[in-house]
Amino acid sequence: MPRRNLKDIQSQPDDRNLPIDKVGVKDITYPVVVLDRADGLQHTVARINMYVDLPEHFRGTHMSRFVEVLNRYQGGISTKNVRDILEDLKKELNAKTSHVDIEFPYFITKAAPVSGQKSKMDYICTLQGDSSVDYYTLQVKVPLLSVCPCSKEISRYGAHNQRSIVSVSVRASEILWIEELIELVEECGSSQIYALLKREDEKYITEHSYENPVFVEDIVRNVAVKLLAHPKVLWFSVETESMESIHNHSAYAQIVIDKTKKL
Amino acid sequence: MPRRNLKDIQSQPDDRNLPIDKVGVKDITYPVVVLDRADGLQHTVARINMYVDLPEHFRGTHMSRFVEVLNRYQGGISTKNVRDILEDLKKELNAKTSHVDIEFPYFITKAAPVSGQKSKMDYICTLQGDSSVDYYTLQVKVPLLSVCPCSKEISRYGAHNQRSIVSVSVRASEILWIEELIELVEECGSSQIYALLKREDEKYITEHSYENPVFVEDIVRNVAVKLLAHPKVLWFSVETESMESIHNHSAYAQIVIDKTKKL
Amino acid sequence: MPRRNLKDIQSQPDDRNLPIDKVGVKDITYPVVVLDRADGLQHTVARINMYVDLPEHFRGTHMSRFVEVLNRYQGGISTKNVRDILEDLKKELNAKTSHVDIEFPYFITKAAPVSGQKSKMDYICTLQGDSSVDYYTLQVKVPLLSVCPCSKEISRYGAHNQRSIVSVSVRASEILWIEELIELVEECGSSQIYALLKREDEKYITEHSYENPVFVEDIVRNVAVKLLAHPKVLWFSVETESMESIHNHSAYAQIVIDKTKKL
Amino acid sequence: MPRRNLKDIQSQPDDRNLPIDKVGVKDITYPVVVLDRADGLQHTVARINMYVDLPEHFRGTHMSRFVEVLNRYQGGISTKNVRDILEDLKKELNAKTSHVDIEFPYFITKAAPVSGQKSKMDYICTLQGDSSVDYYTLQVKVPLLSVCPCSKEISRYGAHNQRSIVSVSVRASEILWIEELIELVEECGSSQIYALLKREDEKYITEHSYENPVFVEDIVRNVAVKLLAHPKVLWFSVETESMESIHNHSAYAQIVIDKTKKL
Repeated sequence: MPRRNLKDIQSQPDDRNLPIDKVGVKDITYPVVVLDRADGLQHTVARINMYVDLPEHFRGTHMSRFVEVLNRYQGGISTKNVRDILEDLKKELNAKTSHVDIEFPYFITKAAPVSGQKSKMDYICTLQGDSSVDYYTLQVKVPLLSVCPCSKEISRYGAHNQRSIVSVSVRASEILWIEELIELVEECGSSQIYALLKREDEKYITEHSYENPVFVEDIVRNVAVKLLAHPKVLWFSVETESMESIHNHSAYAQIVIDKTKKL
Repeated sequence: MPRRNLKDIQSQPDDRNLPIDKVGVKDITYPVVVLDRADGLQHTVARINMYVDLPEHFRGTHMSRFVEVLNRYQGGISTKNVRDILEDLKKELNAKTSHVDIEFPYFITKAAPVSGQKSKMDYICTLQGDSSVDYYTLQVKVPLLSVCPCSKEISRYGAHNQRSIVSVSVRASEILWIEELIELVEECGSSQIYALLKREDEKYITEHSYENPVFVEDIVRNVAVKLLAHPKVLWFSVETESMESIHNHSAYAQIVIDKTKKL
Repeated sequence: MPRRNLKDIQSQPDDRNLPIDKVGVKDITYPVVVLDRADGLQHTVARINMYVDLPEHFRGTHMSRFVEVLNRYQGGISTKNVRDILEDLKKELNAKTSHVDIEFPYFITKAAPVSGQKSKMDYICTLQGDSSVDYYTLQVKVPLLSVCPCSKEISRYGAHNQRSIVSVSVRASEILWIEELIELVEECGSSQIYALLKREDEKYITEHSYENPVFVEDIVRNVAVKLLAHPKVLWFSVETESMESIHNHSAYAQIVIDKTKKL
Repeated sequence: MPRRNLKDIQSQPDDRNLPIDKVGVKDITYPVVVLDRADGLQHTVARINMYVDLPEHFRGTHMSRFVEVLNRYQGGISTKNVRDILEDLKKELNAKTSHVDIEFPYFITKAAPVSGQKSKMDYICTLQGDSSVDYYTLQVKVPLLSVCPCSKEISRYGAHNQRSIVSVSVRASEILWIEELIELVEECGSSQIYALLKREDEKYITEHSYENPVFVEDIVRNVAVKLLAHPKVLWFSVETESMESIHNHSAYAQIVIDKTKKL
């Protein structure tokens, strides 16, 4: 059945006089290769959304073309070619704007603090590109250990602590390594965490974290101080969610700063 | 142990010179009673976030006070008293701004279209209040049946169809009933859906939906036309996500309109 | 359209010679009223699955009848009438066996250990009934605070701790209160946890939990010792998952004991 | 700090007289390389659980050794070496039994049925190994299109259809390819599905699926017939969950057959 005989319903005119802000495909699971500072390239699996705008005079977009564009980037997706994907989407879909979200677990080989034993830690990262603004957003979710300063201060011994997830999104004037952003955040809690720790490492982390108690408020401020001072960062949002060990809910804090408005 | 002897670490001064936009508690599961147009009141269970701002000169907020404020509203939470919760949070936490998110399943008893058999359908609703703007946002997620117009047009018989989730958020000048918003959205797909259908209902819905095929683009435009014409609505966002039956990913569309800027 | 004119495809004969173990409806969200030891009744929202067997000579079951059975139990669902639901399902679906899963958040008002301040804690409970065995299973998920004994022992000060989720399933010879099972589990960690704690409570919990460190192995053994000694319990499974604060993964342990086989 | 000076709390004796069935690590996110029938090897990301038993006379296991064992398998994990992992776990943890779950998205390049356009489809797979039984279990989740036979029969035109997820677990006497199991399942619905379809493909799938309507009951029976006839398969479970487009809940069916007991 030749395709030209099949009516193109999507290209029919529309009389509701309403342009659509975003239309496209959502939650495509797709294997990707991303840039890795240590190893050059890293294989992982992404969850991808791709959207364009649709002018008021067309009834629908052509969904298969989004996947066709995605198929061109099997060699690798990174902060370096998010802009290319956005341009391809605009061209193939005859659109004025385009948007892409690429979320994936990213792995960094870390050495335990005392034993030096190596293991891979996973961090959830998202590359987000939007053609209507001239930059991309890089988000990383970094798990940390947080020891409660109040609990330490008021108790004769011990202090409640828990896993906290710091979500940092940044827009930058130049390419930032994922690793650079993760390392910056990992200095801002009571201790960083690892996939593999021997007893001597556990002793070190327990004592080190007890000496450095932080509230969720402290974590977001510590990260914000570093991002304010970072020359490449134009805008950032930092959130912390602590899965409180004494409660069944989380403690939360957020700071958002647009440095371009402060200058 | 008298409380006055325990040091208030949270009230210590902070020298990082950084106010915090939002700080508070997240993901509290809590039983709530909400207004129900048909029955007066409805019991359900909510997922609640509550935040305030924190000035730059304090180190931390007092997390337990958020739960104390929440405990005052066991008689009922609705669009009518979101503002009271926001005021209580500001007062108890000495804050300038406050924010609350209350997400819950809401049930409506619906009669099947032919048999008239009654059943309860669940809709995920969110009440969001923000003291820094003088209104609340009501969000409802409405599942619909969508039949693909392209598939119907090009095929000799049949047409692929699927469950689509329409998420509508509105800010309004006056109180809107949850039911009112749901009914408005349920007219915008190929067919509304039900928890209980007999054979005669299934025949009706199959034929009715086949006669009314819609793309995700059509659904968001149909909803937008109605919300543009609705006298109480000041701002809205409408998104549709169709869990495509011929793909393993979703089709998506969104329209956002601020009517106060159009006037 | 009279229903008798619509062909009953489900009742057609089937020649594949294969009975079906379970067929029915899954993931129905439904408001329920459950028995509450303190207040008589409690409103909550359940996620429900209902299944029956299907003999080899029928092509399909009648899905709408499951929801019709469920609609009869709007006055309340509890360990007391799970058997009635199972019998109704067998009767309405002409089945030999029936199965039901009812999962819901359950709330208990708890007093903080020093201040006595009251708050509601949520616990995920599941009632599971299976007509092919003559009992139901009650599952509760109880969050606890666990302090690591190794970390405490090897460190000069502090000890890593975290939220642990204990999942206990029991089959009993007589009705067990949900509250009874939760209280039994809450004695088995380093400390129970609460939705609302003042500073004096936080001091108490920090010190008390530091004095009672437990591994995941200790928690499951502590619970197992109590359930082995409980006269009503015939069978149990106890699992603990600790969301380790020093790792990005969980520690896990499980013990399953069928006391009827030990006797 | 030399490790020998740090007390081994885990190796302390325990007097509760209770062996533990499973103890270990849960929900480790880890990059893996798996066997691929078409390309030799495939990179993906797994969610991994690893457990051993613990005799009654030890207080705890040594959690870091699980991750050390995992780190030996960075070159590849497959049905071929699940047994090696199980043996390593038993040896390193001095255990009698060991258990591993490895869940990952797996990608297969498929050609669209008419246009021949290629795209990658994702399938969730789990390799499960248990040393206490002499085999592993392979599970695949296969999304299909299902057209309702009742809806088609009773309606003048159209038929409701939806995405159905078939979960098949098998234990086999010899190695089975993931691809082999997926292909077997994909013949059992109204149509298989794809990540990329052009209009001529959509026409084909719409008509082909309308000509082949199936209930959830039909799907599990169709799969069961094929697995009963498959010479390598010793045991299987097949479940289907259809995300009904006319309801907000799923239809479900399951068949479990142990062929070793039938012989």
